[in-house]
Amino acid sequence: MAACSNQPLAGRLRCWAACSLLLLTAFTPSESCGDDPLPSWNDGPAKQAILDFVAKVTNEGGPDFVLPADRIATFDNDGTLWVEQPMYTQIVFAFDRIKAAAPDHPEWKTTEPFAAALVNDYKAVFAEGEKSGVKLLMIGHAGMTPDAFEQIVVDWLATAKHPRFDRPYTQLVYQPMVEMLEFLRANEFKTFIVSGGGIDFMRPWTEKAYGIPRDQVVGSCIEVKFELIDGQPTLMRLPAANFVDDGPGKPVGIQRFIGQRPILAFGNSDGDFEMLQWTTAGDGPRLGLIVHHTDAVREYAYDRDSMVGQLKRGLDAAKQEGWVLVSMKDDWKKIFSFEED
Amino acid sequence: MAACSNQPLAGRLRCWAACSLLLLTAFTPSESCGDDPLPSWNDGPAKQAILDFVAKVTNEGGPDFVLPADRIATFDNDGTLWVEQPMYTQIVFAFDRIKAAAPDHPEWKTTEPFAAALVNDYKAVFAEGEKSGVKLLMIGHAGMTPDAFEQIVVDWLATAKHPRFDRPYTQLVYQPMVEMLEFLRANEFKTFIVSGGGIDFMRPWTEKAYGIPRDQVVGSCIEVKFELIDGQPTLMRLPAANFVDDGPGKPVGIQRFIGQRPILAFGNSDGDFEMLQWTTAGDGPRLGLIVHHTDAVREYAYDRDSMVGQLKRGLDAAKQEGWVLVSMKDDWKKIFSFEED
Repeated sequence: MAACSNQPLAGRLRCWAACSLLLLTAFTPSESCGDDPLPSWNDGPAKQAILDFVAKVTNEGGPDFVLPADRIATFDNDGTLWVEQPMYTQIVFAFDRIKAAAPDHPEWKTTEPFAAALVNDYKAVFAEGEKSGVKLLMIGHAGMTPDAFEQIVVDWLATAKHPRFDRPYTQLVYQPMVEMLEFLRANEFKTFIVSGGGIDFMRPWTEKAYGIPRDQVVGSCIEVKFELIDGQPTLMRLPAANFVDDGPGKPVGIQRFIGQRPILAFGNSDGDFEMLQWTTAGDGPRLGLIVHHTDAVREYAYDRDSMVGQLKRGLDAAKQEGWVLVSMKDDWKKIFSFEED
Repeated sequence: MAACSNQPLAGRLRCWAACSLLLLTAFTPSESCGDDPLPSWNDGPAKQAILDFVAKVTNEGGPDFVLPADRIATFDNDGTLWVEQPMYTQIVFAFDRIKAAAPDHPEWKTTEPFAAALVNDYKAVFAEGEKSGVKLLMIGHAGMTPDAFEQIVVDWLATAKHPRFDRPYTQLVYQPMVEMLEFLRANEFKTFIVSGGGIDFMRPWTEKAYGIPRDQVVGSCIEVKFELIDGQPTLMRLPAANFVDDGPGKPVGIQRFIGQRPILAFGNSDGDFEMLQWTTAGDGPRLGLIVHHTDAVREYAYDRDSMVGQLKRGLDAAKQEGWVLVSMKDDWKKIFSFEED
């Protein structure tokens, strides 16, 4: 419990209490009670900004103290919590769904956007615009119950592998971010995902991967209808978008699902711009952070001109807005848990 | 900590751990660690059904054990957690908003549904149908930021009093339900409100009244738009319904906001029928409960023919569906916390 001594008094008490409880129930001290709550982060301004922010908002009696109920932290998913290159995982999944349904639709071979999807021509699909993308997403995502969809997602994730890393996608979560999420929760933050991705594509695995329960996942969603089928109460997924949780949609999603403005937001692309704006424009202590993908060797290097996860507005505005740019190359000692120490 | 001995082994361990932590931090034992976790409930089949259900789903190794992550419990608000007679509190609030705006709208005196609202003629307003009600609700609820709306709600609740009990509405929460919510949470349930009422009308006070945080409140909501106003990121409430969380909308709201089927649902009117259906049709142990308003002396007696909180389908189906009817008169020793013991 030496770790607790680094914390302000209130945090120390909580840390001791948490460690005692952990010892009581599991007989082993938790890693989050170790000396460094962020071992996969290199010492530097980004790590320091996180430690300082948590120290000041938990410092009871200090000028920047924030009540636990207001310690809301929101995280983008793709490119912020896990790899999004060379293509958003859900798009890879969607294309696989289309391939699976293709034998029943010979006409897709010559009809766009299906023809492009069948040969993984992401550029051509994206060139057709958002409507085209939504059309594709509806194919393998609707006309079934949420349970049936979830089973398809779970089965796919169990076998699909990332083309470069040759590992299941759920292993490609960023270890420094997992540590940060745990560190925030140990300091009585409530952590949420606020992603442009599909809410039902994420919920089956976020608890295991990030410790974030299903109801703390905010994302894009399709229409769902309640009906009796053969006398059985049933929810049916309909092929129509209900809400797009991206760009200016993110503050709206935050208001609707969480009901209060976060004090910390972490993103990586311009789809997170308004979430960062909304979060850091509030009164009192605020922290906005951006993962800057600068590591072509260990992960990917991209920002302004990327087809996926484009970061242009955020890069230009970060300094003026006081948002912390987290350089993957410089700030992260370790990116994935499977890397050797 | 004698209370812990009533619990199954796993629950006992948790109860001791919780009590120890409470003692450690507050130096006083919590009431929820007393001998009876539901002191405002009379002994009888309803109380027993709750105790038995919690015992079996927390009995690790037992046939009905449910993992804590799946212990989702949903509660209607009006008529289930607080008084809804003689009129839903939010309608009283809405009518007060219309009265406040009336001096600027002399035409309302002769235009329905406004004229009826100005003289609290609920029957006439309801007779005009749902569209008319929504029209009224938009008057005092839109064209402002969520923060501005919240302040109006908070100010109103601080002064408005119930016509019969002559007390602030937030004092009219049912003590047996507050105890049940605490009891469930002490047994690692996550408790949610799923109400036809406005999500932003409830969020300002549910934590204090019920221990339910803002993001665990599901309800009806209006459209919200993100925009820059004078360079400031702003959310603006728009005069259009986004989602009606009532009847068949409740299972949809549960899916969207919570993302999994509850194992326990508690309602009081036919607006909760589909939520109860959806909850209890799931596999494994399930519990559906209905508050039956049978106490004209201490609260109100109403069901089939009530204008507000009508219970007809639920009353007819309860026996067949195995839903527990909780009689306010017989099952509740105490209804409000301000009653003398």
